[in-house]
Amino acid sequence: MGGSSFGSIFRITTWGESHGPGIGVVIDGCPAGLPLSENDIQDFLDRRKPGQSKYTTKRNESDSAEILSGVFEGKTTGTPISIIVRNQDQRSRDYGNIASLFRPGHADYPFTEKYGFRDYRGGGRSSGRETIGRVAGGAVASLLLKELGIRVQAYTKSIGPCTIPEKDYRMSEITENPLYMPNNAAASEAGEYISTLMAECNSCGGIIECTAEGLPAGLGEPVFDKLDALLAQAVMSIGAVKGVEIGDGFAASLSTGSQNNDPFFSENGIVLKKTNHSGGTLGGMSDGSRLILRAAIKPTPSISRPQDTVDIKHENAGIEVLGRHDPVIVPRAVVVVESMTALTLADLLLRNMSARLENIKKVYS
Amino acid sequence: MGGSSFGSIFRITTWGESHGPGIGVVIDGCPAGLPLSENDIQDFLDRRKPGQSKYTTKRNESDSAEILSGVFEGKTTGTPISIIVRNQDQRSRDYGNIASLFRPGHADYPFTEKYGFRDYRGGGRSSGRETIGRVAGGAVASLLLKELGIRVQAYTKSIGPCTIPEKDYRMSEITENPLYMPNNAAASEAGEYISTLMAECNSCGGIIECTAEGLPAGLGEPVFDKLDALLAQAVMSIGAVKGVEIGDGFAASLSTGSQNNDPFFSENGIVLKKTNHSGGTLGGMSDGSRLILRAAIKPTPSISRPQDTVDIKHENAGIEVLGRHDPVIVPRAVVVVESMTALTLADLLLRNMSARLENIKKVYS
Amino acid sequence: MGGSSFGSIFRITTWGESHGPGIGVVIDGCPAGLPLSENDIQDFLDRRKPGQSKYTTKRNESDSAEILSGVFEGKTTGTPISIIVRNQDQRSRDYGNIASLFRPGHADYPFTEKYGFRDYRGGGRSSGRETIGRVAGGAVASLLLKELGIRVQAYTKSIGPCTIPEKDYRMSEITENPLYMPNNAAASEAGEYISTLMAECNSCGGIIECTAEGLPAGLGEPVFDKLDALLAQAVMSIGAVKGVEIGDGFAASLSTGSQNNDPFFSENGIVLKKTNHSGGTLGGMSDGSRLILRAAIKPTPSISRPQDTVDIKHENAGIEVLGRHDPVIVPRAVVVVESMTALTLADLLLRNMSARLENIKKVYS
Amino acid sequence: MGGSSFGSIFRITTWGESHGPGIGVVIDGCPAGLPLSENDIQDFLDRRKPGQSKYTTKRNESDSAEILSGVFEGKTTGTPISIIVRNQDQRSRDYGNIASLFRPGHADYPFTEKYGFRDYRGGGRSSGRETIGRVAGGAVASLLLKELGIRVQAYTKSIGPCTIPEKDYRMSEITENPLYMPNNAAASEAGEYISTLMAECNSCGGIIECTAEGLPAGLGEPVFDKLDALLAQAVMSIGAVKGVEIGDGFAASLSTGSQNNDPFFSENGIVLKKTNHSGGTLGGMSDGSRLILRAAIKPTPSISRPQDTVDIKHENAGIEVLGRHDPVIVPRAVVVVESMTALTLADLLLRNMSARLENIKKVYS
Repeated sequence: MGGSSFGSIFRITTWGESHGPGIGVVIDGCPAGLPLSENDIQDFLDRRKPGQSKYTTKRNESDSAEILSGVFEGKTTGTPISIIVRNQDQRSRDYGNIASLFRPGHADYPFTEKYGFRDYRGGGRSSGRETIGRVAGGAVASLLLKELGIRVQAYTKSIGPCTIPEKDYRMSEITENPLYMPNNAAASEAGEYISTLMAECNSCGGIIECTAEGLPAGLGEPVFDKLDALLAQAVMSIGAVKGVEIGDGFAASLSTGSQNNDPFFSENGIVLKKTNHSGGTLGGMSDGSRLILRAAIKPTPSISRPQDTVDIKHENAGIEVLGRHDPVIVPRAVVVVESMTALTLADLLLRNMSARLENIKKVYS
Repeated sequence: MGGSSFGSIFRITTWGESHGPGIGVVIDGCPAGLPLSENDIQDFLDRRKPGQSKYTTKRNESDSAEILSGVFEGKTTGTPISIIVRNQDQRSRDYGNIASLFRPGHADYPFTEKYGFRDYRGGGRSSGRETIGRVAGGAVASLLLKELGIRVQAYTKSIGPCTIPEKDYRMSEITENPLYMPNNAAASEAGEYISTLMAECNSCGGIIECTAEGLPAGLGEPVFDKLDALLAQAVMSIGAVKGVEIGDGFAASLSTGSQNNDPFFSENGIVLKKTNHSGGTLGGMSDGSRLILRAAIKPTPSISRPQDTVDIKHENAGIEVLGRHDPVIVPRAVVVVESMTALTLADLLLRNMSARLENIKKVYS
Repeated sequence: MGGSSFGSIFRITTWGESHGPGIGVVIDGCPAGLPLSENDIQDFLDRRKPGQSKYTTKRNESDSAEILSGVFEGKTTGTPISIIVRNQDQRSRDYGNIASLFRPGHADYPFTEKYGFRDYRGGGRSSGRETIGRVAGGAVASLLLKELGIRVQAYTKSIGPCTIPEKDYRMSEITENPLYMPNNAAASEAGEYISTLMAECNSCGGIIECTAEGLPAGLGEPVFDKLDALLAQAVMSIGAVKGVEIGDGFAASLSTGSQNNDPFFSENGIVLKKTNHSGGTLGGMSDGSRLILRAAIKPTPSISRPQDTVDIKHENAGIEVLGRHDPVIVPRAVVVVESMTALTLADLLLRNMSARLENIKKVYS
Repeated sequence: MGGSSFGSIFRITTWGESHGPGIGVVIDGCPAGLPLSENDIQDFLDRRKPGQSKYTTKRNESDSAEILSGVFEGKTTGTPISIIVRNQDQRSRDYGNIASLFRPGHADYPFTEKYGFRDYRGGGRSSGRETIGRVAGGAVASLLLKELGIRVQAYTKSIGPCTIPEKDYRMSEITENPLYMPNNAAASEAGEYISTLMAECNSCGGIIECTAEGLPAGLGEPVFDKLDALLAQAVMSIGAVKGVEIGDGFAASLSTGSQNNDPFFSENGIVLKKTNHSGGTLGGMSDGSRLILRAAIKPTPSISRPQDTVDIKHENAGIEVLGRHDPVIVPRAVVVVESMTALTLADLLLRNMSARLENIKKVYS
């Protein structure tokens, strides 16, 4: 109940601080028989690793994953999978400044109010490094989904005001630019925008979009554990996310019923939809269409400009947040959004198995 | 795990279908000693009751709450509070049409895919009547919050394109118009917009805003059970919600760090913020400022216009959804958003009690 | 977290006090498609109904079950099943005596310490009537198990010192005597023992045994949610139970490895055991043999003899607990033990479905 | 839901196999401000370490604990505490024999049935080494309890038929003999009994008793999460435990109401009990008296005598379980029972904090 676990059946528990010995995750409830190696985890971790482009922090971390349990002869055994990443770059710098001041836009103040004090070395538990455990878990969830023909993919839709024209998505270009945008030209424009802000000791945010293909209809539990509700929790729980929407999202509030309803039609006995305003969910369950969600990411709060704040004695003070910081966390957060989506889907797939008596009989016959 | 429960310590479990004998909720984990009567519940239920204005369905329901357990001599006892509302207007009409067709924009299709068949009388479990249990639970949560000096209030921010100017909120007017808008003039304009759509057998959506005042800093659990994450789940789990945002929300993705960071300052030793772009949360915990969230509501999917769809045999068909339907569910959903927010806050307040050893000693000394 | 829920996937939440309007249960997570009627519930409830023999309280309750949701056209729909039993015999007697005194052997004192006050009408939430919700839930769980070829059966093994000889179990006689003992002669002897105690205004306890046949091997989750661990919680959570054992139980502590190990053998490719000291579990999982557990029930604490106690002002006092009380609750608790066992097994069957990747593929192919 | 977590607020998640890289635990929900060092953990681990006497396995493990997160400047921070113990003695022996045979009395067969295959190196996840995570967690829980004046202590009550006379408990002698018995003479006799069995390639079991002093009345949640119910789960979840009882336990089934009821009396306004047949719980809540529970431990199933069994092809076979095994696991399980008891109490203490509105006000005033 400390809030470090996510999922019901396929369940992860993460731990670790940015400047402690390491960061990790325990995955409990992963089915036995799934092929899994450290390379599978590493591929995901490398997508969020620092130092990959000029738009990311220069903190030097190899972020190497070690699997400590739950895998035998290349397959998951059904027991908890423990994965650890040792922190390497714990520079012994002077934290005195940050230790006694509350950084604006950071968790420092509420963290102190909640617990009475805080680990002031970097962001502690509220650091972006916390997401390493999520991504390692997401790698395993994605492998499970893949076995069932489901593919999750996230990418950057916009950086600040630089966005991709609705009809100009080029999915193959996602990995061709450091911002993970499905449009190299937009990425190039966005890169210039970021560079301008960097020169001004400023930062920006953006929007990440995530899709899932191949979902059977009926995933998600009616009422509180709706597919969209759990996705909203999953994605909003990522540090800098300030908004989540499914399908048309906020735009749906401006639409009308006749426009927004997606008509069904049948093709060879398969139920399809002519449009997908719903973004793949109806009544909190997957409707067989492509799942689409978007997350709004706020600008990185760590900026080296002078800012007003207070200190831990509640006295007014000034602060300049020095050190190595991402001018925009959107590109590194892409794989985090993808991971949280995969974790949510994997869990709901397992939960959905017992929805019908006939499915139970399939397993136990 | 059927997804009908919400909350960890202060936990509700709802049940009931629109056309079954009744709807209800069990609240487990409510502390003992809270004054509670059926009138307290009724006041909340009356805010979502049908038939209150020309913009809501004419279904005739008194929605009278009966408390069956957990209250003794006017106070909660610490044991589960069971509340039931009997359905009255279960018209014995012909459901044949809806029974064999999947209504666009409704849960009919995924529900059938998930469970193999469905209760085709009205929306069944996916009906808006399901929210009665949430609102009864929200009434109790709100009373608990009130004892601790916390006040939650939701209202309509916009109906379709009709929105309230940023600087013209008049909170006293919320209860003066049937749309629960804090601006009677905007409500009047919105009313005309709805009337036009009704004449066209169409429907619309809108945006609900919810605020909470009086929260101590530090509520919310870091990582997955962040205050904003659980609010996102809570609000997105309401039937027609397609997007949730906190504070500046999606607009934050267009901002810069220097604009978006809220500077702290101290007044008489109390830590305050000069702005509130964060909407009252930092690092997933309350930051002592006013909590602000918004929910995007899609247009009511039940419209009497002819629509394309498929039947349960997966053959193409046409449908006209007749019967009594709200042209916009926003005004009735206001109290549902408020209830889900109150339930989330009440639970996190109880969860936060054990965050510090010194708080534990306060209770057990 | 108020502790009124049991189970992870197949999950019940009970509510109600002995002298409030009613008692009930919400079953969430029951698969869709299970045939279910009120008669199925009633058959179970009738087995714990008061007034069935001279050894049970004369409280007059019909204990009629009403299903309020989750069933449509004779089958479960996958949504929560709400069942209510109205209390009828809420005699308006004078509770003054019990209201101000703590009855020895009852929950009165810790209940008051926990919550600050208590519902002093009868046992309130700690009454034996609380088990109505468990039994209604157990009826549904048993139907589900039956569909999968699993049969759970509980009976009385001993009443005080009157026990059934190890080699003289006659299962057909269980329903032939009011004590539910699989040996009419032992039941007759036990009946005389109870009568003697009743004449002395005294009470007694006994041992209930419960078996399950037809379980596949592998049910139960290693480590904390072992089959035997969850059974222990389930059974020990019944009011008067003071001990639980599986297989040889406490006698195993006196045995040796060579005696206690059950040798495996194979017959037509099926793995069997030559003995069953384990009682059907190995490593916390079912081993394919018959499951056997026993629960020790303490004597009914309500006796009309004068007893020493204290009052709510913490002053010494005397008490005589008058009214209608069972001289032994064992016979009425038989169906409660059977229900808790069935609920545990049903839940673990559903949890076990996702243990192997190949089972997941069976459901989603 | 893989069953590797225990507790609701103070919650541990364990991971690791006997012959993998290591074993560990993540403790989430531990309050901030608790002094904690690796030595505190080590003290507990040393009590279950192998090789301490001639009655324990000679497996050579230092079992050194490393704290990876959640502690800063000597105090818990409120974030997850991750503790790891590296396995050292993973002898590269030939597992071929055990790999293809199901050992009687072990989890091999149901494990294979559940997951399709198993990690056949030692007991894998079902090894006694799994309890390292429990004991590390129990060390932290015990420190928390100590801050609140609560002391938990377990010891050996009997080894096979060698038991301690009811009136001859000498608590100071517990640490004076390798069997942790509170009576050196009984321990000496038990030692001879074990030696005899060792000579015969046989093994034995015993009974562990655990007490807790200083508990406030009212801990435990009525109905399913009763203090005794959760203790039963906690203790029965330890590998070799076959029975659990509270207070008089199974003997209570032979008693009468007038004998078994503990009369209350008042001394200086404090409510006390003249006897403690209840073992410190009434109605599933602590009653202010000393908590007493007992666990029945079965004989170690690993014996080097020839036994009948089947192989993984379900063919009949013979087996001799060679290697280093404890002839009795009781002495090493003492600290495990103590740890599980401490974990249960710590969690229920935190859960109980919100039982009364006035307690909530104490924390938030």
